[in-house]
Amino acid sequence: MQFQCPLPQTRHELVQIAHGAGGRLSKELMERVFMPPLSNPLLAELDDQARLSLPPGRIAFTTDTYVITPLFFPGGNIGELAVHGTVNDLAVGGAVPRFLSAGFVVEEGFSLATLQSIVNSLGDAARKAGVAVATGDTKVVQKGQCDGLFINTSGIGEIREGIDVSCRRLEPGDRLILSGTLADHGMAVLSAREGLSMQMTIASDSASLHGMIAAVLDAFPGVHAMRDPTRGGAAATLNELASASGVGIVLDEEAIPVRPEVRGACELLGIDPLTVANEGKVILAVPSHGVDTVLDALHRDVLGKHAVVIGEVVGDHRGVVVMQTAYGSRRVVEMPLGEQLPRIC
Amino acid sequence: MQFQCPLPQTRHELVQIAHGAGGRLSKELMERVFMPPLSNPLLAELDDQARLSLPPGRIAFTTDTYVITPLFFPGGNIGELAVHGTVNDLAVGGAVPRFLSAGFVVEEGFSLATLQSIVNSLGDAARKAGVAVATGDTKVVQKGQCDGLFINTSGIGEIREGIDVSCRRLEPGDRLILSGTLADHGMAVLSAREGLSMQMTIASDSASLHGMIAAVLDAFPGVHAMRDPTRGGAAATLNELASASGVGIVLDEEAIPVRPEVRGACELLGIDPLTVANEGKVILAVPSHGVDTVLDALHRDVLGKHAVVIGEVVGDHRGVVVMQTAYGSRRVVEMPLGEQLPRIC
Repeated sequence: MQFQCPLPQTRHELVQIAHGAGGRLSKELMERVFMPPLSNPLLAELDDQARLSLPPGRIAFTTDTYVITPLFFPGGNIGELAVHGTVNDLAVGGAVPRFLSAGFVVEEGFSLATLQSIVNSLGDAARKAGVAVATGDTKVVQKGQCDGLFINTSGIGEIREGIDVSCRRLEPGDRLILSGTLADHGMAVLSAREGLSMQMTIASDSASLHGMIAAVLDAFPGVHAMRDPTRGGAAATLNELASASGVGIVLDEEAIPVRPEVRGACELLGIDPLTVANEGKVILAVPSHGVDTVLDALHRDVLGKHAVVIGEVVGDHRGVVVMQTAYGSRRVVEMPLGEQLPRIC
Repeated sequence: MQFQCPLPQTRHELVQIAHGAGGRLSKELMERVFMPPLSNPLLAELDDQARLSLPPGRIAFTTDTYVITPLFFPGGNIGELAVHGTVNDLAVGGAVPRFLSAGFVVEEGFSLATLQSIVNSLGDAARKAGVAVATGDTKVVQKGQCDGLFINTSGIGEIREGIDVSCRRLEPGDRLILSGTLADHGMAVLSAREGLSMQMTIASDSASLHGMIAAVLDAFPGVHAMRDPTRGGAAATLNELASASGVGIVLDEEAIPVRPEVRGACELLGIDPLTVANEGKVILAVPSHGVDTVLDALHRDVLGKHAVVIGEVVGDHRGVVVMQTAYGSRRVVEMPLGEQLPRIC
């Protein structure tokens, strides 16, 4: 089930080395491919840096390079993923995403039509998320020197007043809430990549979560921590939280939502859904008195309608994540070593 | 004259796919290779986003991906270049550079010792420039899917009060000042790459210019425009300035400083030094009454000691850059098409 970009390619519509060399063709690429979908007053200035106005206060700053393969996968593509991932990293820091940078590395011979389609998606996702692509850069490398296309996005957001979320703020008694099903993104990419023939298509959950997270923080500003479980999956995120806060975590295996088709694919491949990347989910650590309010806010958003409590923070086994299984036994959820699914984001 | 990183490589000291997968080995890479040289309180937070405090005011935001080959070249390496280039893009916008992000894409099998050496250089250059690496990301791609190492840095700076530089502010009568010799960076990289055997080593001019630029703006805040002539060289920069401001530019060929060994290499290879990338030079458009003050400030800095007036802004031939040659004739300096020197930065 290889998912292909359907656009035509002709010999004269391929990226050339000169498109990245700062001269006439660079300018043409900028004006033809990048400016129309990304256009905003900041980018239109065409200076080597954007000038931004932000209200006084703290800002959040984050960066991520997207090297996903294939570039188009069920449920998304690298362009929108590059917005969602960075917007989410700002949102889980309690920030309102405002500005993105976009740095492209493109391989010589890449289809200009495919590039256009990806930049269009990036522009659409940015508009939907209410962020402006304020500054950008494109480099072209020779054939064989990068695998198609990599995109770096860095993001700037305004941290909301009165919000103090941090991976070091988990406290015994906090409940851990997961906003929806696990492992959709990683298994969608893997199934597209490996050509798995499955009865049902698995689609990525790639989405910008800032709107839902803003609603949660409006309803209950006292959230202790938020993280989006991307690379390394929920297992990595929960281990990081436990370790950074010096607390233990107990998960309830039966509570963790995984779509049946995703669970099936994971079982087929011997992969633990807890270790698989997500791109549209958030894990929240919430004091017990805020749990109902947070769940209500999540359930009101289509991206959070399957939100559930999946576990609890404890004072025992500090730094260790433990799974309470359906059979009453317990096992340690280890930090994944990590080699399982390269280039998933 | 291939310039090599002198560090040892062993089989057990190579980057593995798992180093980029968000699990235990990612954490180890972060703690062992990235944290020691880059360490600062922001990065030590280890959240997915840095929280920054900036004074009220406008900020500058810029991004660049560095894909230079070879990674080590006479006068520098990709790590310090990734700081200098982004710091300079902020400085030429009239901003005081404050924060950088660093996004690495590393090829499986890359030497960890070489990576360490590059991260050390990046950290040293950031410290010297007074900027904090506030947030970072590392992706590892399989062997053959990127050429060694790419680094994206995005930068945030505080725009100085009372400064309004822009590529659209050139006015007839402005003098164009160049802070030093042209073409050192591009010819250094090219000579290292192509194994040219030359009598004299050409070294890159890669340097952070923010200190010198701050001194210029302190002395004369009325500078109209500043640009660092990187990809596409001075020819691209001057054409962009002429086009953005709707003015003409006349250059004085005899005034443009080029080191003899660089000029020799350019002549040997049939390359116009005006089209070659620089990484430690700035072109300033200055009203005539500020020229002496700006030159004085530049000459006081070791990076600007060869600064000279190289031309003038005119109301004729709008959008066109013209060279007044030593023989009294004139020729148009075109925007380079751009394919000449790929992966120079």
